[in-house]
Amino acid sequence: MQYKNFDETNIFNKLKSHASGSFNFREKLDAKRVEKCVVPMGAGFKYSWAAKAVDDTCVSLLQELSDEQQLILKYKALLDGEMMNTGEKRKVLHHLLRGEQGNPVVKDGKNIGDFYRKELDRFCEFASCVHAGKYRGSTGKEFNTVVQIGIGGSDLGPRALYIALDNWAVKEGKKRMEAKFISNVDPDDASAVTASCKLESSLFILVSKSGTTQETLANELFAKDKLVKAGLDPSKHMIAVTSQTSPLARNSAYLDSFYIDDYIGGRYSSSSAVGGCVLSLAFGPDVFREFLSGACEADKLALEKDILKNAALLDALVGVWERNFQGYPYTAILPYSQALSRFPAHLQQMDMESNGKRVSRSGEILNYQTGPVIFGEPGTNGQHSFYQLLHQGTGVIPLQFIGFTESQKNDDVSVDGSVSQKKLCANLAAQIAAFAKGQDDSDKNKDFPGGRPSSLIFGKKLTPAALGSLLAHYENKVMFQGFIWNVNSFDQEGVQLGKKLTKKVLSGDYGDGALKAFSRMLGLCP
Amino acid sequence: MQYKNFDETNIFNKLKSHASGSFNFREKLDAKRVEKCVVPMGAGFKYSWAAKAVDDTCVSLLQELSDEQQLILKYKALLDGEMMNTGEKRKVLHHLLRGEQGNPVVKDGKNIGDFYRKELDRFCEFASCVHAGKYRGSTGKEFNTVVQIGIGGSDLGPRALYIALDNWAVKEGKKRMEAKFISNVDPDDASAVTASCKLESSLFILVSKSGTTQETLANELFAKDKLVKAGLDPSKHMIAVTSQTSPLARNSAYLDSFYIDDYIGGRYSSSSAVGGCVLSLAFGPDVFREFLSGACEADKLALEKDILKNAALLDALVGVWERNFQGYPYTAILPYSQALSRFPAHLQQMDMESNGKRVSRSGEILNYQTGPVIFGEPGTNGQHSFYQLLHQGTGVIPLQFIGFTESQKNDDVSVDGSVSQKKLCANLAAQIAAFAKGQDDSDKNKDFPGGRPSSLIFGKKLTPAALGSLLAHYENKVMFQGFIWNVNSFDQEGVQLGKKLTKKVLSGDYGDGALKAFSRMLGLCP
Repeated sequence: MQYKNFDETNIFNKLKSHASGSFNFREKLDAKRVEKCVVPMGAGFKYSWAAKAVDDTCVSLLQELSDEQQLILKYKALLDGEMMNTGEKRKVLHHLLRGEQGNPVVKDGKNIGDFYRKELDRFCEFASCVHAGKYRGSTGKEFNTVVQIGIGGSDLGPRALYIALDNWAVKEGKKRMEAKFISNVDPDDASAVTASCKLESSLFILVSKSGTTQETLANELFAKDKLVKAGLDPSKHMIAVTSQTSPLARNSAYLDSFYIDDYIGGRYSSSSAVGGCVLSLAFGPDVFREFLSGACEADKLALEKDILKNAALLDALVGVWERNFQGYPYTAILPYSQALSRFPAHLQQMDMESNGKRVSRSGEILNYQTGPVIFGEPGTNGQHSFYQLLHQGTGVIPLQFIGFTESQKNDDVSVDGSVSQKKLCANLAAQIAAFAKGQDDSDKNKDFPGGRPSSLIFGKKLTPAALGSLLAHYENKVMFQGFIWNVNSFDQEGVQLGKKLTKKVLSGDYGDGALKAFSRMLGLCP
Repeated sequence: MQYKNFDETNIFNKLKSHASGSFNFREKLDAKRVEKCVVPMGAGFKYSWAAKAVDDTCVSLLQELSDEQQLILKYKALLDGEMMNTGEKRKVLHHLLRGEQGNPVVKDGKNIGDFYRKELDRFCEFASCVHAGKYRGSTGKEFNTVVQIGIGGSDLGPRALYIALDNWAVKEGKKRMEAKFISNVDPDDASAVTASCKLESSLFILVSKSGTTQETLANELFAKDKLVKAGLDPSKHMIAVTSQTSPLARNSAYLDSFYIDDYIGGRYSSSSAVGGCVLSLAFGPDVFREFLSGACEADKLALEKDILKNAALLDALVGVWERNFQGYPYTAILPYSQALSRFPAHLQQMDMESNGKRVSRSGEILNYQTGPVIFGEPGTNGQHSFYQLLHQGTGVIPLQFIGFTESQKNDDVSVDGSVSQKKLCANLAAQIAAFAKGQDDSDKNKDFPGGRPSSLIFGKKLTPAALGSLLAHYENKVMFQGFIWNVNSFDQEGVQLGKKLTKKVLSGDYGDGALKAFSRMLGLCP
């Protein structure tokens, strides 16, 4: 296997010259192209790239890119446990949480897949016991609320997934507990969430891999303080999700502890106990296992070498095409589903923290652009907000739509001859066409240039398996892009300097420069 | 008064040449600069631009720009009721909702300020009557929940403001009713919100200026259906906020109607009955009036000609400097306050819908960049998410931080020698310094280039007046930028094409091209 910077590949300049003669998909987009440009994803999803500025030659070049940068080979190496997180010298094993696609991964004679499966069984069993009333709060009340305390990957993913399945679970009779989340070190966050809970029947999950996350530990003590003041025993109301070597492991301050290891990065930890405890408690372990099976299906499909049969790979390649050769510095994620309201925030983390890098995996400064800015809000809301700029702004912003033919609750009403779900989908179809085809008008204020590229991920209904497949799609897309750009997508050295300076401020050691002046401004020192 | 495209001004090329010799604020940022570069805003806020790549010469040039494009003169003309929304031939009067800064605005012999004040008094009185139990649901129960049905400007602003003041109101004993919001035409949204309410004690606010918004009317019927099925009389559970000429006005289907007019754009309507009804019901009319007074204070300060005394103006100019001469296509808004969790989404709308334009106010295609992409999430959460890219990505993203020295609830806990609010502010100070100053490291993966510009808006506490001032700051900033770019910041023709095509799809009139093929894909036709 070979690791090359993107601009050192043979294909780089070929793509560059192809970009100069741009494909006019505004003209070319017809019914035939829409029908042709579809790739099956896992769990019934499909990926449509018809409305992307990608012609047949471009597809061939992108296939060449995939082959030259050995994307599938690198994916397989990752699955087999190669040390892909080079900076931190760690394996990258979040796929193993949902199935064994490669060879068994063994370290120090221990099968790591067995370890993950054992923890999965353990927290599923724990959730079942909670639901059966075998664990109860310190006054004997059954738990009906679960509160996750975590930040970053321990918050955004699990929160987005919980919101995504909440309506579905209610409809299917699978809702077991209400879930809430505390993340920000802003005391107003912890105060509001704890005040909204009946503490007697609340179970807290403390999530920190290292056991040293400043915000999370502060919020743990915040919650414990509330429990104690309510006359409750915190150790009966709290479990920990952490690594086996952290101070939170096997600690009598917690009812139980569930483990991940260094091979599960925070932003990729939704499939582990980090997402699994809260989702199993909220919806039951079977729902979480369905979620994992959907993710596993997408992981399998991502092994396909032919880019027209591998949605995650194609999505990654199209993104690189847009980023490096069409020069677009951002991508908007636009789910036509209120259930996915926080999914863009999770993807923003997953993508920007993974590929927002300016050095190669071996530490050289790169001469090309890497990860774009990711943002998004659900449609149709966004249509009444920032879509103005997307349609008629001076820059072109690549779009990715997500849609479903059926709602989750099937609680709908017909107005003017159509139910709301139909209106939702009609808006989605209309937007893709409007962005691509535009509309000529002699009044330039009413003229739509069109030629604004979008892709569409669509499925029947947002079920646990569909959600798992969707999450894995993006994880794999980001991974492939990282391979293309030759960056380490699995570390995050960019968060360290802020942490270091925060410690300095809190210890009073801020020198007499700008840091001190800003600290003074914010009331931290006289 | 003169309207010139930005690239036709004398100052344009001067700024362009100044940009080529860039100011190294990484080196220049010291305590002195931090202390010097502060501009007072309304309601106790201050704006710090020390960590922006703006030197003294640049300040002079930006002052020249402000003068040449007659920014203050145009603002005054707007206040005096000139027709600033040229495309739709409308005045732009949202400032008048919070105070009379200019000459009285009269149309057809009617004083429009009087009309706004009368509506303000009416909905304040209505809220007081609801709180006093004079209006009750159809079974005689007092109202304790208010549900706003609206989308875009009728949703994002009011929702962001409600969330921003909720903790403060609880702490101050001002919380009168719980507020909820239905916006998306996704039926799962309306279903989940209505299911979470006790309908007997819920009052719905239907918000649509035109009375024809597809999503809002669908959600109105959704809610009415639920009310009827619960044996309740919808006309006793619903008020309307609309224009006097809409089908919703003076309609016996509503308990009462409150009015705005065509001079209040959706994204600028938070200060009108659109935001006022729900906020007055939730927190009491006095809180909403305090909010207006804070906004009024910021509006007054925005009249100052000296850019070093006018925070909204300076913020606007720095933004244009970064957009047009430093080439940054985006800006991140990063409030260190969980209360402002949805404020970036509102600003995203306000900014991108206002200035995401490619034609001048007189309809010519422009040859320079206009409004940037706006995105953001609260810190410290974002630090554990997309900040990696902000610190070490290949692109530079201008930042705007917002911070407060005090929390809203003052419910806090001390861990490791500091309370959470102090940790929050320490993180904020540390981030500004980290972005600006960077950190050299021979390991390039741990090297921070620095020189990444940010500004800071800071105040003591997020009170209603502070929030009003903050909102008005951004409204005025966006207005000034629109004047500089010579666009009409007050229309949104870019939303029309999607609406038109949606209607076609719903009526089956989608031709046989891409629109039909996408519609088929989404299950809308066989």
